[in-house]
Amino acid sequence: MECLCFFNGSLKYMEDYDKPVPQADEALIKVILTGICNTDLEITQGYKGFQGVLGHEFVGVVEQAPDPGLIGKRVVGDINIGCNNCINCKNDFHHHCENRHVLGILGKDGAFAEYITLPVKNLYVVPDNVTDAEAVFAEPLAAALEITEKFHIKPTHNFAVLGDGKLGQLVARVLSLTGCNLTVIGKHEDKLRLLKGIAKTIKLTGANYKGFFDIVAECTGNSQGLSFAQDIVKPSGTIILKSTYQGNLTMNPSGWVVNEVTLMGSRCGPMDAALRILERKLVNVESLVSHVFTLEEFEKAFQTRNSMKVLFKLNTARTCGDME
Amino acid sequence: MECLCFFNGSLKYMEDYDKPVPQADEALIKVILTGICNTDLEITQGYKGFQGVLGHEFVGVVEQAPDPGLIGKRVVGDINIGCNNCINCKNDFHHHCENRHVLGILGKDGAFAEYITLPVKNLYVVPDNVTDAEAVFAEPLAAALEITEKFHIKPTHNFAVLGDGKLGQLVARVLSLTGCNLTVIGKHEDKLRLLKGIAKTIKLTGANYKGFFDIVAECTGNSQGLSFAQDIVKPSGTIILKSTYQGNLTMNPSGWVVNEVTLMGSRCGPMDAALRILERKLVNVESLVSHVFTLEEFEKAFQTRNSMKVLFKLNTARTCGDME
Repeated sequence: MECLCFFNGSLKYMEDYDKPVPQADEALIKVILTGICNTDLEITQGYKGFQGVLGHEFVGVVEQAPDPGLIGKRVVGDINIGCNNCINCKNDFHHHCENRHVLGILGKDGAFAEYITLPVKNLYVVPDNVTDAEAVFAEPLAAALEITEKFHIKPTHNFAVLGDGKLGQLVARVLSLTGCNLTVIGKHEDKLRLLKGIAKTIKLTGANYKGFFDIVAECTGNSQGLSFAQDIVKPSGTIILKSTYQGNLTMNPSGWVVNEVTLMGSRCGPMDAALRILERKLVNVESLVSHVFTLEEFEKAFQTRNSMKVLFKLNTARTCGDME
Repeated sequence: MECLCFFNGSLKYMEDYDKPVPQADEALIKVILTGICNTDLEITQGYKGFQGVLGHEFVGVVEQAPDPGLIGKRVVGDINIGCNNCINCKNDFHHHCENRHVLGILGKDGAFAEYITLPVKNLYVVPDNVTDAEAVFAEPLAAALEITEKFHIKPTHNFAVLGDGKLGQLVARVLSLTGCNLTVIGKHEDKLRLLKGIAKTIKLTGANYKGFFDIVAECTGNSQGLSFAQDIVKPSGTIILKSTYQGNLTMNPSGWVVNEVTLMGSRCGPMDAALRILERKLVNVESLVSHVFTLEEFEKAFQTRNSMKVLFKLNTARTCGDME
């Protein structure tokens, strides 16, 4: 039996759930730490229509695996599970498998639980010098690296990151490494302060940066971000869309046509590179942790507003009731 | 009067040379530190046929300038001086001006001297938190950044840097920041050790890495590097050429055709981005300094073999004879 945090229209904590049973190609992983992503908050607002165990950012220890060499290893995981049969899977492009399951987001129970299962090929062993609190950032850090994976960021680009939250912070840390002329535009002085030495920061005001930036990464997590991005990007510039949120937005794309703006959506990224970045100590992610809760405290965790990364700590004792 | 190190077929130290006189658009800069680049060593072997004061890596203090705000500022410099009239200069591409002068390399006396002149628009003010010994690396660090400026390096690329010398070390430090799967291949165990935590290293042996790497940066500074690069790059991969050396090499380009290899030459890079990288403390360059000499010791400096960066320290006292 295990305890977990389940969503089916509302969030529930359950203590006597059956442990998941790994399939032939899967490992059973005991979760150590797991993080709340903005996507989790959006799911509780109806995004993707997902029902099940939430959570897709985790670090854990392998308890069972077809390959005995994996047992006892500390791992993080690629959350996209391909069908292995479609054209995209066969072209090493399983992130875009049409039949995919996604941990805690689509057809697969997630990591707000004592145990999860994932295909062995989705697992990445965490280097020894990476702490648990660093490793739990591997998945969102990989998502930030998807920008530099997909798009040529030049050391001379004028780059704006819109949003000073969890996603914007990680994106800024990755982009700072390129040497580009980086500005983070946000609303929160305390969050912008976390970017000292990483990027210039601008507190969002009426100030006019119209047409100033070569590239803008939209990381606000809300539907106002895109039109602001459109205002500040240069003609023939690029807007990289990272935010995922519930709800539509209304806008006229003719501005993109007239200004010849490129828009690029960007989702999950390379887990191996994220672990290398952490192993090389190139980014500080631990300073982004604002709260650590037990799973039982899920209501408090989900109600924490204007926070940075909120983590659940699991498996610090054998039974759920004993969690630190 | 000033002292300097002059090359006209052989290297000479001179103590009673006239100070250079800045032109209307130029500043007069008192040199603090200046570094020997492999290109300087190649020039003494006949490369480019240059005669004059060598040296193009420097940090100095502005003594005279048309803009009084610059006086007293610590600066580094873009070494390419455009004519301001040709099509390349008019297209903001002065690095490729056909009439260009290049500090200490082409038609312009260099920085192995107490004083140099450079156009004001070539100067970059050094941020306060960047030391002299860091700032003197701005020019070669910019050259390393020219790789990420010109070419999209993905966090998932398998990248090999050939050469563990000054150039290879800086290129590796910049590429490491991308998160890419980075291997430096070199001959010297002591130099490869400087890359701990930055890249995997391979001591050059008969080991077979044929067709393994997506991209190879050739930084060996000699004519054997290119054919080795050709062996280890993947079909349809890319070789980035960074080495400049005196002497030709003989090879058949049909291998590039059959394997559809791309070759990209890459020279000087963005100075502003190099200063941002130093200001953000993203690379450690001071550990690359192996020797510091006075200009009078130029013979010892140029004869230092298998060294890392050799610097000249100038202007530690009013007269040359009193240099520390």
